[in-house]
Amino acid sequence: MISVNVDLGSRSYPIFIGRGLLDQAGLLSPCLNSRKILIVTNETVAPLYLHQLRANLADTECYDLVLPDGEQFKTLATVGAIYDKLMSLKCDRGTTLIALGGGVIGDIAGFAAATYQRGVNYIQIPTTLLAQVDSSVGGKTGVNHPQGKNMIGAFHQPRCVVVDISVLDSLPVREFRAGLAEVLKYGLIRDSEFFDWLEQHRDGIESRDSNLLAQAIKASCEQKAAVVALDERESGVRALLNLGHTFGHAIETATGYGNWLHGEAVATGMVMAADISRRMGWLEDADAVRVKSVIRGFGLPVTPPAEIDESIYLNLMSSDKKVRDGKIRLVLLKSIGEAVIEENVDAGLLRATLKAGEALCES
Amino acid sequence: MISVNVDLGSRSYPIFIGRGLLDQAGLLSPCLNSRKILIVTNETVAPLYLHQLRANLADTECYDLVLPDGEQFKTLATVGAIYDKLMSLKCDRGTTLIALGGGVIGDIAGFAAATYQRGVNYIQIPTTLLAQVDSSVGGKTGVNHPQGKNMIGAFHQPRCVVVDISVLDSLPVREFRAGLAEVLKYGLIRDSEFFDWLEQHRDGIESRDSNLLAQAIKASCEQKAAVVALDERESGVRALLNLGHTFGHAIETATGYGNWLHGEAVATGMVMAADISRRMGWLEDADAVRVKSVIRGFGLPVTPPAEIDESIYLNLMSSDKKVRDGKIRLVLLKSIGEAVIEENVDAGLLRATLKAGEALCES
Repeated sequence: MISVNVDLGSRSYPIFIGRGLLDQAGLLSPCLNSRKILIVTNETVAPLYLHQLRANLADTECYDLVLPDGEQFKTLATVGAIYDKLMSLKCDRGTTLIALGGGVIGDIAGFAAATYQRGVNYIQIPTTLLAQVDSSVGGKTGVNHPQGKNMIGAFHQPRCVVVDISVLDSLPVREFRAGLAEVLKYGLIRDSEFFDWLEQHRDGIESRDSNLLAQAIKASCEQKAAVVALDERESGVRALLNLGHTFGHAIETATGYGNWLHGEAVATGMVMAADISRRMGWLEDADAVRVKSVIRGFGLPVTPPAEIDESIYLNLMSSDKKVRDGKIRLVLLKSIGEAVIEENVDAGLLRATLKAGEALCES
Repeated sequence: MISVNVDLGSRSYPIFIGRGLLDQAGLLSPCLNSRKILIVTNETVAPLYLHQLRANLADTECYDLVLPDGEQFKTLATVGAIYDKLMSLKCDRGTTLIALGGGVIGDIAGFAAATYQRGVNYIQIPTTLLAQVDSSVGGKTGVNHPQGKNMIGAFHQPRCVVVDISVLDSLPVREFRAGLAEVLKYGLIRDSEFFDWLEQHRDGIESRDSNLLAQAIKASCEQKAAVVALDERESGVRALLNLGHTFGHAIETATGYGNWLHGEAVATGMVMAADISRRMGWLEDADAVRVKSVIRGFGLPVTPPAEIDESIYLNLMSSDKKVRDGKIRLVLLKSIGEAVIEENVDAGLLRATLKAGEALCES
């Protein structure tokens, strides 16, 4: 088992990474405040792993809530259902919530934990690659508003994150690839050698070699932990983790939550960010082509949906959380491995990218 | 103008206390992050003070949302209406929410500010005595769940609190008295001399003498600020501020939110706490009688509603936020001016108090 520490003073916590961790009785014990636990999961994950997890919590007072599966249920109403369950069980402030599922479950259960009785303990057990390398680490919790993704939420750090690589064996290929988008992101924003390594080991990663996956997850979690430790509440550098996300959120919102997977939208969003970066004269043409080619090589989409026109993007992007005083702020690339936040994107260049379609990153 | 500082490191903020502060242009400017403001108020307060406040924010991009008035609207659905307004205005993270109203408005708007885009700036302008001396200070925000008061919420500190004593001129007598319950509470839990002073100046306070009110509000805010600075997230001493609240919440919940004012329920709850404290042999009989007599002297109720029987109390109290591992924790009095948190209240003594009715604090 590998352990990566997220260093946040009194809110520091470990990320445990390894095979078979769901079977390790005792791993969670130090992270519980009392015997009372509510596991929040969904109807896809529950048949696979709920029994296994509960078996290792046999000496606790453990309950579960199985939610419907899908981004379209990441709403305030679903959080309300968790509150109802906690109230009906008379759960007090010593209760621990366990999020067993992908990013949606982690975000919803984390937000319920952040706000039930003004904050209770929670543990993340991510069951998708995307959640393991990104959303389960760093304390961002929340739900969607009909007009914007993740618009309602709180910062609330988990007590620990348990990444059991075995769960990836059963992950559908589309979801697996969506997770790789966030892995590639760390290479693009902070670590060109990691991007090279990913490109070189594509076949092994695609075939889910355990050792390669453990290395990729560890490197991703280390990058995320380092950024979060520098800027827990996203007043600065943490915003770099949103490479591709402003475009990606617009794609997700415009196509209806759940049609594009988050990682797929981010993948295309990163190609769009690379395209603007190229048009701004920052990213070499060859590097922009390479970004698109590596992302496509991992089976991810690189062309935004044709039905979203420029005005829809601009409207959705203007309500993005990264907006300040009405200016759209974009995370762009100076080079592969170096991202920056740019406030003054020329409207003409932005329009050119929004119109480029299949010709993104191609001069 | 008096200023009391709430000392919380990087989250410190001032409480401004004085007459006519709503007319002081410029007082709020240092507390705004950007020009965009949403004032959240209710249909009772809006006709009285909204125009006045907006006149002093003339150089900002200022919007307002007028909610229905009453504790029964302190719900997740009302917070949802604030999110909808913020989204429709395309408010970004630099937006400031201003809560203009009593405790209910402050709690709802504060929770919306805590959770919109994972936290935006807010300012409290409390328009009831209760909100001025208690709920606007300390960063507790939240809404009710149908099965329990304030069960959903977050800690989120305002940037400043503006206490304009002039607004008390128009406050209905029942609400004014409800606020005095929380003022009396500070004397009971921490400051016997303040309790003496309040008893001595009852007539002047009841007639709303500005100087006496300013002194009483300042002393209350200083006590609250001192306790919050010691224990922002209520892991210890801050729980003392809940004297009378466990019983009070049970009364409010059992009678339906909005029938008993919060301060009225707390007043009766403090008499119940004094009664148990007397039965435990801590509070002298004469002091228990005095507690009841002073509270009644300020026109507050001292007898719980006859229709709530013991089993209803015990059921409601068992889901109180102060419960730990199923034990009911009560704030009780060692003497007037010294409160303690007690976990091991004898069930027989508790039952005797719950049954006492009009005979509370009378041996």
